[in-house]
Parts: sequence; structure tokens; C-alpha cells
Amino acid sequence: MTTLRVGVLGATGAVGQRLVAMLEHHPWFALAEVVASDRSAGRAYRDSVNWRLESPLPELAAGLPVKDLQAELECDLLLSALDASVAGAAEEAYAGAGFPVISNSRNHRMDEDVPLLIPEVNWEHVAALAWQQRQRGYGTGFIVTNPNCSTIGLVLALKPLQDAFGLKAVQVVTMQAISGAGLDGVSAGAIQDNVIPYIQGEEEKLEAEPRKILGTFAKGRFAAAEMVVSAQCNRVPVLDGHTESVSVQLAQSASWDEVAEAIRTFTAEPQRLQLPTAPARPLWLTAQGDRPQPRLDRNSGQGMTVVVGGLRPCPVLDWKFTVLSHNMVRGAAGAALLNAELLAAQGHLHPRG
Amino acid sequence: MTTLRVGVLGATGAVGQRLVAMLEHHPWFALAEVVASDRSAGRAYRDSVNWRLESPLPELAAGLPVKDLQAELECDLLLSALDASVAGAAEEAYAGAGFPVISNSRNHRMDEDVPLLIPEVNWEHVAALAWQQRQRGYGTGFIVTNPNCSTIGLVLALKPLQDAFGLKAVQVVTMQAISGAGLDGVSAGAIQDNVIPYIQGEEEKLEAEPRKILGTFAKGRFAAAEMVVSAQCNRVPVLDGHTESVSVQLAQSASWDEVAEAIRTFTAEPQRLQLPTAPARPLWLTAQGDRPQPRLDRNSGQGMTVVVGGLRPCPVLDWKFTVLSHNMVRGAAGAALLNAELLAAQGHLHPRG
Amino acid sequence: MTTLRVGVLGATGAVGQRLVAMLEHHPWFALAEVVASDRSAGRAYRDSVNWRLESPLPELAAGLPVKDLQAELECDLLLSALDASVAGAAEEAYAGAGFPVISNSRNHRMDEDVPLLIPEVNWEHVAALAWQQRQRGYGTGFIVTNPNCSTIGLVLALKPLQDAFGLKAVQVVTMQAISGAGLDGVSAGAIQDNVIPYIQGEEEKLEAEPRKILGTFAKGRFAAAEMVVSAQCNRVPVLDGHTESVSVQLAQSASWDEVAEAIRTFTAEPQRLQLPTAPARPLWLTAQGDRPQPRLDRNSGQGMTVVVGGLRPCPVLDWKFTVLSHNMVRGAAGAALLNAELLAAQGHLHPRG
Amino acid sequence: MTTLRVGVLGATGAVGQRLVAMLEHHPWFALAEVVASDRSAGRAYRDSVNWRLESPLPELAAGLPVKDLQAELECDLLLSALDASVAGAAEEAYAGAGFPVISNSRNHRMDEDVPLLIPEVNWEHVAALAWQQRQRGYGTGFIVTNPNCSTIGLVLALKPLQDAFGLKAVQVVTMQAISGAGLDGVSAGAIQDNVIPYIQGEEEKLEAEPRKILGTFAKGRFAAAEMVVSAQCNRVPVLDGHTESVSVQLAQSASWDEVAEAIRTFTAEPQRLQLPTAPARPLWLTAQGDRPQPRLDRNSGQGMTVVVGGLRPCPVLDWKFTVLSHNMVRGAAGAALLNAELLAAQGHLHPRG
Repeated sequence: MTTLRVGVLGATGAVGQRLVAMLEHHPWFALAEVVASDRSAGRAYRDSVNWRLESPLPELAAGLPVKDLQAELECDLLLSALDASVAGAAEEAYAGAGFPVISNSRNHRMDEDVPLLIPEVNWEHVAALAWQQRQRGYGTGFIVTNPNCSTIGLVLALKPLQDAFGLKAVQVVTMQAISGAGLDGVSAGAIQDNVIPYIQGEEEKLEAEPRKILGTFAKGRFAAAEMVVSAQCNRVPVLDGHTESVSVQLAQSASWDEVAEAIRTFTAEPQRLQLPTAPARPLWLTAQGDRPQPRLDRNSGQGMTVVVGGLRPCPVLDWKFTVLSHNMVRGAAGAALLNAELLAAQGHLHPRG
Repeated sequence: MTTLRVGVLGATGAVGQRLVAMLEHHPWFALAEVVASDRSAGRAYRDSVNWRLESPLPELAAGLPVKDLQAELECDLLLSALDASVAGAAEEAYAGAGFPVISNSRNHRMDEDVPLLIPEVNWEHVAALAWQQRQRGYGTGFIVTNPNCSTIGLVLALKPLQDAFGLKAVQVVTMQAISGAGLDGVSAGAIQDNVIPYIQGEEEKLEAEPRKILGTFAKGRFAAAEMVVSAQCNRVPVLDGHTESVSVQLAQSASWDEVAEAIRTFTAEPQRLQLPTAPARPLWLTAQGDRPQPRLDRNSGQGMTVVVGGLRPCPVLDWKFTVLSHNMVRGAAGAALLNAELLAAQGHLHPRG
Repeated sequence: MTTLRVGVLGATGAVGQRLVAMLEHHPWFALAEVVASDRSAGRAYRDSVNWRLESPLPELAAGLPVKDLQAELECDLLLSALDASVAGAAEEAYAGAGFPVISNSRNHRMDEDVPLLIPEVNWEHVAALAWQQRQRGYGTGFIVTNPNCSTIGLVLALKPLQDAFGLKAVQVVTMQAISGAGLDGVSAGAIQDNVIPYIQGEEEKLEAEPRKILGTFAKGRFAAAEMVVSAQCNRVPVLDGHTESVSVQLAQSASWDEVAEAIRTFTAEPQRLQLPTAPARPLWLTAQGDRPQPRLDRNSGQGMTVVVGGLRPCPVLDWKFTVLSHNMVRGAAGAALLNAELLAAQGHLHPRG
Repeated sequence: MTTLRVGVLGATGAVGQRLVAMLEHHPWFALAEVVASDRSAGRAYRDSVNWRLESPLPELAAGLPVKDLQAELECDLLLSALDASVAGAAEEAYAGAGFPVISNSRNHRMDEDVPLLIPEVNWEHVAALAWQQRQRGYGTGFIVTNPNCSTIGLVLALKPLQDAFGLKAVQVVTMQAISGAGLDGVSAGAIQDNVIPYIQGEEEKLEAEPRKILGTFAKGRFAAAEMVVSAQCNRVPVLDGHTESVSVQLAQSASWDEVAEAIRTFTAEPQRLQLPTAPARPLWLTAQGDRPQPRLDRNSGQGMTVVVGGLRPCPVLDWKFTVLSHNMVRGAAGAALLNAELLAAQGHLHPRG
């Protein structure tokens, strides 16, 4: 397999930095372009980025010139971590110019011809791409998105339950890390010694996205799953890792052992294809009663394993449990990267002339 | 009215310190005795307490000798913040010796003849005391308890909804402050940059206590309210103030305006009696979308007002909202003190010979 | 005494909010104007400010219209918490227009004709105002400044030592609160679980300002004190309260008792004049070995008392100790307000026509 | 080289856990015994330890039975992380029984015949062992210690300065992480939003240990270095990584370039011997003005590199700079392990019969 050249859009932001870090030793992809919408264009990446990761800035990336959104790009695919204020038009322009755009931005997630993709959950939705390209006249380009950072962990935990028992209703209360708001998105004066019970637009995403992802794509259209989701989103003073308290109502009754077994044994397409970023286990059911905890568990499976714990009966619905996922890895950079790997393995990505 | 002399049991702990502070300028009560179960007995209070409040240690308290649980006490009533490991037997012994014991400890809360009291919610439950004294042969003594710190805020917010519309089901996810675990109950290494999705015994209390409090006392017995509660309890790195994400199902449908109005206009017996520690408003419905927040709102009404925010429809049940209460004031020390004030106003407390 | 009408410049910022709060019940001053340099001008104060204090936004302030820097102002003096990017020119313009400007901004602190004033330390420097007005042609206006937030606590602790023993050298390492950087000046992603060993321009201020303040004003010029200061400034994850580890070399030797006595007995002009914001004791020497601590001691004397602790011999210089001051009260809003009170008591402030 | 079997004393504590983790893939050593002084003896390690590291508990360690201090041990050397309350006698007993004891505990550090060892700084002090064994009649056993966690980073940074220019005086103010106090040594209620300007016994260690380490061992005795150290120790809300603000006075003058060069080029015996835990660079001089920062830099060189930054002239002494070291790795577990590796490479460790 030829190494594919990757351009990262929004490379100086929090998710962009994670993408640059995760691409450093990637077996299939090589970082070729770093693009930023701000005034950093023109300088070397090392001089425009405020690097915040504990791992050092990769040598190769450090010297790349930062390009702006108008520049010519020499690469085979684009991973987009653009700010939502510019992502909408920019991603369409790149797709129109023939680039596969694998985006973490929210702008196109709910478009009627764009897959909202978690490879372990709805890899069949990739089928919508042919329809998207036809409809939009994109040629070789296309747009694929991954869900919001709080959606991914939840939906991964729900998937085996939906498959085995069906889902009728989901109550979810999130305790979200500050990194989800971007590099400097939450001030210390606002969040230290505090909880903020509101994140703009978050509950709407968390109530809508799971239904698209757990729904079907057939006969040229997406049909949402029938379950209903109620979300309450809180910001807490945690650096990385979204914790979610979840209650579910199942379509058919199940014992504790059956529910636990469904979660424990879950694997899917990325594990079968052995995608480089896919964890051996997408879900881990911990037996420790006081886990998962973000600081101790967020790096499970290099940040790609979602940890579930505290499975117990819910007096109001059927079952309650806690879900933890690394919002910057499984919930953002790793999500886009795993989507790119799935598309590569399926033959949707190619070297450009 | 004669000033009543108060003994504080467990006076060196986190709740005990709050009681000592709140009694400093109390119009009806005067601190007369400080009791501790540990090896601090015998020394002056200032030398045995690790004072952690921002307000200075009250002069009068500083010089009081700390007594142990066996000592003779010169006071008219006892406020108990004893550790649950000793509270059970000790409180019974004091009540048996003729002391009114107003306790924050969990041991006797669910006893069939002990009121679990929030003056704004179930002040009629005080009627159980006569029965308790008869049944236990207590003479002038008795035991009254207040609920768990996470229960009080929730039940205060539920009370006007139950009165106006009836309650069928409640889902609550808590984000609880570290002070709820006692002075040194949570280590920094455990909670910094973290969420712990488990608090021992907490969910059981939060699912049981509201039903007793919102139930009735009639014909010599407590009957629990019929609603069902599902609780998930999390510890977060917040110093004081429990935040709770709540969803409720009502017995009869109500509009947003009706629900908001019920919360907004709620007052009760302590406000009518103008009890010294009663806030002008037991509930405050904030219009700011990102409130209540523990650091900004926990001191509302000197820590006795419960702040409700984010009232909006719930796709799974009927309504969802956020509840915040100061766990050390409204949820503990202030709860016991308000109970004592109610009992004094009702004529249940008297100077002892 | 007639109540003087105060305008607050930079009223929506962190220091501006503190000023608005501290003016609410002031016996001499009444808030009359709120001015902000940003796009909030034109709206009511309640709608332009992101109020972050635990005390509620004062009723009177809430309804005031926010004016911009060009507007006509109806008031007798100005307290300035303007951002340094605009304070320089704006404060000069206001002084030129006849307003007494009492500023917390750094721009004019080291001007050769501007007092850098801490009323307890160098109230005689007010004498420079006549010279300033003559030199600048200001008429009734003038500019008075207070020092940087990290300077004030240090200099208050040094003053009795200088008076009693003389000072030759000072080593100071600061651990500064995040509020010192403004309302959203430090992002949670930067400071949580972290220390940042650099604050732009801070060490320079802390090495220069104490020498001006502890120096003299005579014969129309300021002469700096001869001591030398070495500063290292760190940001730590504390909301309010700057902690400083200090070592000093004295000009003449002194015993522990003599040093402690000098600190303990220190009072000055504001205490003699009983200025409303002056604490009974500007310095408090704590006997507790593990104090001062910012969370427990920052509100000493309503935030105006500087707490000193851990006085012990220094093997390299002479004495070492810890200094704590509330950076937003004693170090900023309270500093400006106390300066205004001193000037009022001295007859430098008058109602404007 | 034969693999040596290691016993870890105090294996369930914070440092003990680090040792167990660092031994997992060690090329020379294999974990053979886990010893704890508490009531956990008798159970499997996985059941007695409250594992707090992000890396999972090593499989091999999980199943080992925890032994008490009286048990027979099958191993070739002991790494001790015992609590100081028991380390003194226990380590002597093990050494008397023929075990090489490489200890992180403070008890024997200042003994006149015990090396206080940092392999990069004073590897020649190992020569004291022969004298120790003779004097104490230890046979094949001996005791080697590593310094206090706040000492190691400081001394590593001082070593090249002492070698090149000589040292006369050192002023150090520490901002120490909570993990330095042990697994649950600091409560969240004490340290959150706070600084504690006192750590018991810490300043004494930090003023005494560097003089022994930077001194000489000759003719059967240790002679302390002549420089004087003044220390002020603070606890800050940081999980791992001690930050230190340092000022030094040199014996001979040096330019910025000379000082920087001395730090930059420093390597020593462990690098020459390529000890497995030795970092390629024991010191890293960062050019970024706002570094080192504990959260971003503590894992430099797998936690074994000490990061120095902010080198600039000191107006009182000669030079000031910031030092950061990972208190649990370079400052504790890694320190003991590196000592063991040095001793192994020098031929002081052997398989026991």
C-alpha cells in the first residue's frame, strides 16, 4: 500500500495538534500539509502553534509551512479540525476540488447526504458517498464527518444494546472536559472549583446525532433510529475525558448478565480490518465499582477504548451505567483518523496525480 | 424568649465547624458545649479543631473545653454532626437522657418513628415525635434528623411540583462537592482533574429519602410517596455545592409557565414563621441559561436558598432542570439548625432545669 | 461631607466589577458612571457585564448605561481599571479635562510626577500632585496610581522592616492567582494541574515599584530607596490571593522578637484617619506554621489585611517569611479605593459644579 | 548478565507503585517480592493495592502475594519505599541479613556512613559502602539512599555550576506536587484553590542534603560542600512535578553563555554507562520563556530529565532560573532504580544463593 499524504485543516487548534501527533508514526499516512485559517499562515508550524501536548512536537511537522485556506495543497486527503465558523464553506470547496474531506467539524454532520460515521457502529453508511458525489457533482472529492465528542462514547456503548435488545429511550447527563471547548475555550476563572451546566448547542447534538448514527442508510436516504434521547450537558474541571451518566430503556427485557455480555464481547469492522488506530476492544466493561474515572481511564486503548462501568438496574428506565471516552482522541482526532483508515481500507482513498 | 444553650456533637468535623460558625450570632441559641468522639477531648476547642472556614473561629467557641461522649453536658438541646460510626448509639443515649437531639447523621433517618425533616417540605412530620417518645420511653428527649446533603436540594425543588402537579418519576444525576465527604474525606490525588462516579451508600439514600420526606405521617405511621427515584452520584472537584441534573415525570401535564411559576412562588412554614436561618426564598429560579453554578450560586440566601435553572422539556420524561444547593449549609449544618428553629418555634424546646 | 460621585473606567472587567461591588454601600462615594472601552457601550451595565462575583450585582449599578471613552461624564472622580492598551492616553485626557483619576493601570506608575501610592506606606507622596498639575497643566485634574497586585502585599510587609531596621536586599518568589490576569486571562487548559513560571512584565514591575514606593519625594522629585529586589513570578491554579515567599537582608541586625514586633504593631495614616476601606490592621502576623494560605486567609480584613507568616532566619540573607494578599481587593480595587479615600480625607477631591 | 530478583518494600504506596510499574519491562531486574508493612500482607498484590497510575497494573505483579516485614524474601536486592515510621529499623535488619537495600526513605540519608546518591552527581560516594559494611558488620548487605524529591532536581541543576564555577549560596523556593505527600497525603479540601506554605521537615532536608551530595567522600568520611542553602517549601495543587524558583551565587563570575553551556552539555556516569533508566540528557535547558511547566514537562526523558528554564541575572545573587523534575520518577522511584542500576554496573549486586 502506498503511503497517502495527509493535509490537516485547522492544524494549530486543540484537535489539529492531536491529529499532527497521531500522524507522526502512522503506517499508512504521512503528514504533508498544515492549514490554518488564522493569521499564522506563512510561518513554520513550530512558530505558529501553541503546542499543548505532553509529547513533543514531531520534528517533521515543526518545519512545515502553515498554509491558508486559499493555498494549493499537495496531498491525497484532508483531515479537518476547522472551526465551525469557516468549516462549512471551506470543506465544500475542498471536496469540490476533488479532495476527500474527513471532518471533525459539526457543519455537515446532519446533511442528508453526508455519513456521520463511527467505524464500529455504522460503517455501512459509507455507501452514502456515491450518492453524495452524484448529487453534489464532487468528482473524486467527498465529505465524511464524525460525531460530536460527547456523542461518540455514548453511541459506542449503546450499539451492542441496540443490536441485542433494541433501544427505546436514553437519558444521558454529561460531565465534559474543558479540552472539548478548544485550546483556550474555557477560562480558569470560569471553571475552577465549579461546574457549568450548559454547553452551547451540545444537548441538541447529543439528542440528534445518535439517532442518525444508529439509524439506517438504504435506498438513497438516512432513516433515524426510533429511540428518543434526553441530554443534559455539564462542563467540569477535568482536562481530558468526558464522563456520562446514562440510563436506558430497552425494547426487550434482558438480565444483567446478558447486558454485560453484550458490552463485553462487542467488536466490529475496524477490529476485523485491524485498522491501525482501532483498539483491540472498542468497549471495556470495568468491574471496579468506582470506575471509569477520566484521569485514570481516559488513555485506555491509547485513548480509543470507551470504558463502561457501574452497570446496575435503573428504577425509572431499565439499566444505568457510566461511560467514559477520551474526548480529544476517540471523540475527535482519533475519530477522524479511524474514519480515514476505514475509507482507505475500503478503497475510497487514492494517491492524487 | 429565653436563649437556649446548644451542644454540638462532632464539633471538630466539617459539619460541626459550620454549626459552630452559624451559632456565633444566633438570636435564639448560644453555643454552650462542644463534644467530639476522638482524642481531642480535654483540650480547648481552638487546640483540637483544624479550622477550615474562611470566617475566623468564633472567640467564644475557641475557649470551650472539648468533651467526650461520656461527659455531663450543660445545655438544652444537641445538634449532632457525629460520624455515622458512633452516632447511632450516642444519639439514642442522649435522647434517653432527656436531650432533644437534632441530627445530621444518617443513622436514624429511616427509623419508623423518626422525622426526616425539611421545614419547608414536611414540617407536619414533627407530629411523629410524641409517638417516638411514647414508643421509646424517651421522656423529654427525642431524635429529629435531616436528610442527606444531596437529598435536600432535590426535594426542595420537587416539593412545589408535587404539590401542584404530582410526581411519578425522578431521574437525578449528582455532581457532588468534596466537602460532602468530610474534612479530609477525599484526597487530592484521587479527585484533582477527575470525576469519581461512585459515592458509597449515596444512591440508596437519594432513592429512598425523598419518598419518606414527600410522603405523609398519619395515624402513627409514615407512608412513602408513590413516585420512584433513580439516582446516579458523582464526586467532582468542587469545594462546596452539589449540582444535580434532574428530569421529572409529572402526574398531570403542565406548561413551562406553570412549572416555573410553581417553583418561583414557593414559600412555606419557615418563611411564615420567619425562622432566623430561613431564607426569604427557599427556591430561586434563575433566568440565566448557564446557571446555577456552584462557585457563583452556592451562597445564595446565605447558603440556604436552593437555585434552580435550565428548566426545559425532557424528551424522555416531562421536564429537566439543574438544582444547586450548598451541601454544607442547606444540606447539613443549616438543615439541622433550621430544624432546631422550627422545633423551638413550635414549642418543642425548653430550658433544662 | 457631601457624597462624591464616582465613575468607574473599565467597569466590565475583573477589577471594574470589584470596584462596582465595593462602592455599593460606600459611606463617602456613590457610583454614578460606568465606562468601558469595548463594544458594550450603550447597553445597560447588567447586559454588558459578565458578572463573576459571588455577591449579586448591585441593583443601582445594574441599570446604569455603559458609556464609552468619548462620552461626557457626570461625576467628581474616576477610578480607573482600564486595560493598559488604552489607559495611558485615556487617563491623561480625563485628567486634562479636570477629573481626578485614581488608577489601577500600570501605564503612569513610573512617571516622574505621578505618585505610586499605598496609603499605609507613602502617603507623603501625595505632595507630588501639585507639581504634576503644574508641570502638565492639568487644572483640577490629576493622576494617582496604585502599584501592581504583587507589589502591594510585598511592600506593606517590608515597610515596618525598612522603618525599624533598613532594607538592603529582597528576594521574592510569587505564586500568583489567576484573577490577576483579568476575567478570562488564563485558560483552564493552560493552568489546571500546572504552574506557569512566567508572567509578562511582572518581574520588572516587582523589582522597580517597591523602590519608588519606599523611596522619598522631596524637592520636586522622587528618589528611589537604595535596596535591591530580585523577583521570580509564577502563576498557580488559585482563584484569588497572591502568595509570596520572601527573604530579606536588613541594614542593621535584629532579633526574631524585634522583627515580629515591628510587623505586629504596624499601623499608619489610613488607620489614624479611619478611612472606610482601611482595615484595623494592615498587617497580620499569624502564629500558625502552615499559614497564610490564599483560600483561608485572602479575605482577612475584608481582603485589605496582608497576612504574614513563617517568620524564620534565612541562611543566605537575614529573614524569610510568607506574605499573602488578596490581589483583587488589597492588590487592585481596594487599593484604588483606599487611595481615593485618602485623597478625599486630605481635601483633594471636590464635587464638580 | 543474569537478571537480578528485586523485592519492593512499601510496594502498595505511591512510590512503591511507581517502582512496580518501572520494573515491568526492566532489562536487568525482575520483580520478585512485594512487601508492605500494613494489614495488606497475605493477600495478592492486586487485592491490596489501590492502583493509581494511568498505566495498568502489571500482570506479573498483580498475582504476587504481599509479604510483611518479618517474612523470608527470595530476591537479590531490595528497593525500599517504606514509610519513615518503619524504614529505619527495617532497612537495617535487611542489610544485616545480607540484602543490598536501595532506599528512597529519609531515615538513613544523613548517616555518616551511608551514601546519599544521585548517580549523575556523586557516584564516587559509593566508595563509602566498604566502610559502612566494615563499621556495621553487614556482610554482603548495605544501605544506599537517594535524596528527598525536592533535593534531586535542584542538585542536578546545581552540579554543572559547581563543577564549572563553584557555588557559594543557593536560594530555592519550591512549589511541590501533592503526590510528594504519598497516595492520600493531601486532602482535596486542604489544597484545592490553595497554596500551603509549609511541608514538615522539608526545608531542613533541602538545606542539608545538597551539601552532603555535592561534598566529598575521602579518607573514610563525608565532607559537606561549603555553600549555604536557604529553602522555602510550598505545596501547590499540581498532581506530579516539583517546580523550583532558584537563585545562585557563584564562586567565580560567569557569562550567560557560560552558565547556559554548562547546563546544556552536562552528562555524567549514568550516561557513559548507558544505565537503562538514565535519560540521554539529565538536564534540558529550555529556550521557551514560560517553561518548564509541570504538566507539560514532567515526563521529559520518561520523567528522568530535569528541565531548567528562565535563566537570567539575579539582582541580589548572580543567576536565577526555574527547575522542574518529576518528583515521583526522578525524585523517588526512578532515583532508587537508577541507584540500583549504577550499583549493578559497578559490580555491587549479585545473585544470592
